[in-house]
Amino acid sequence: MVQNIVFITGNENKLKEVKMLLAPGESEAPVFELTNANIDLPEMQSGSLEEIARIKVSEALKHLPEGQAVFVEDTALCFDEYNGLPGAYIKWFLKSMGPEKIVRMLDGFENKGAEAVTTVAYGDSEGKIHIFQGRTKGKIVEPRGPPTFGWDCLFEPIEGSGGTYAEMEKKDKNKISQRSKAFAQLKEYLYTKAA
Amino acid sequence: MVQNIVFITGNENKLKEVKMLLAPGESEAPVFELTNANIDLPEMQSGSLEEIARIKVSEALKHLPEGQAVFVEDTALCFDEYNGLPGAYIKWFLKSMGPEKIVRMLDGFENKGAEAVTTVAYGDSEGKIHIFQGRTKGKIVEPRGPPTFGWDCLFEPIEGSGGTYAEMEKKDKNKISQRSKAFAQLKEYLYTKAA
Repeated sequence: MVQNIVFITGNENKLKEVKMLLAPGESEAPVFELTNANIDLPEMQSGSLEEIARIKVSEALKHLPEGQAVFVEDTALCFDEYNGLPGAYIKWFLKSMGPEKIVRMLDGFENKGAEAVTTVAYGDSEGKIHIFQGRTKGKIVEPRGPPTFGWDCLFEPIEGSGGTYAEMEKKDKNKISQRSKAFAQLKEYLYTKAA
Repeated sequence: MVQNIVFITGNENKLKEVKMLLAPGESEAPVFELTNANIDLPEMQSGSLEEIARIKVSEALKHLPEGQAVFVEDTALCFDEYNGLPGAYIKWFLKSMGPEKIVRMLDGFENKGAEAVTTVAYGDSEGKIHIFQGRTKGKIVEPRGPPTFGWDCLFEPIEGSGGTYAEMEKKDKNKISQRSKAFAQLKEYLYTKAA
């Protein structure tokens, strides 16, 4: 029987995407199955993205039966001129202000550089916590592309070909996004550990 | 014997100021004595200042002997154009960017309006939580006055006579500040309850 791992999310699309990112290669046998739990976990204020994720998964472990492996993810958007902020708080700014006004947060600064960071915290079946982090550099631009997903329409990654995340094909975005980088690390860990 | 109340702070100056704000009038007998405890309490991310304070004082109650009354305070700086943000996160912005750059967060907006909000959460001897909140409206200006205390040099209250908090005499600031308004409510509660 393969191990069950719980991803804390109430978002079916996120679950589907993460399942894809963690899927075994063609010649690999699956070493775990992924399910989700929709638990509203408290998130801390902290200057450390790792600490926020670590505490969040600790809370998740408390909600689940002993021995249940679980992971959480948190994505931050860090402006160079803001020295890393809004960071993990970006979701509150997006909710309060919307994407258009977020661009204007940088009107006073010439440097529009930003970094997107996804932090995944995995609590294993012994309750030990492992942190994986993916980073993608880019810049903040006037919204372009469908405003379907958070701040995707205003982040133009350097590694891309000039489009915003929202303008990119999903498969192209997945090649360079901070989320796929973080989950690639988690995937490698899970497959290596099982080997 | 008068009741002992603990204020969670490691800052001697804050303790001194709050002692002053809560001191009995000339004709009143003291109904409590104030001490402090330097406990580093976790703070939540939340869109609600009341919730942040409520959870913070709940954590404080867990650290103290049963029956010990305690309060915490948290001050937020809310930009009109940011729809209430940075709010409670202002301390992180101040730490990361410093006051000069915080002013530039509003360069893209004509409206420099802001509100300073202090939330006090009091956990009584039965563990019941009471919330008090003081609000002072003003605007964000280029830093003026000694940069000694947080963002005081860039907040010009409407109720004042055109100076920033940093430029005002302490007694004048105390007449209109969100902190003194919040603590006036706590004081009234404590004295009325005892009556």
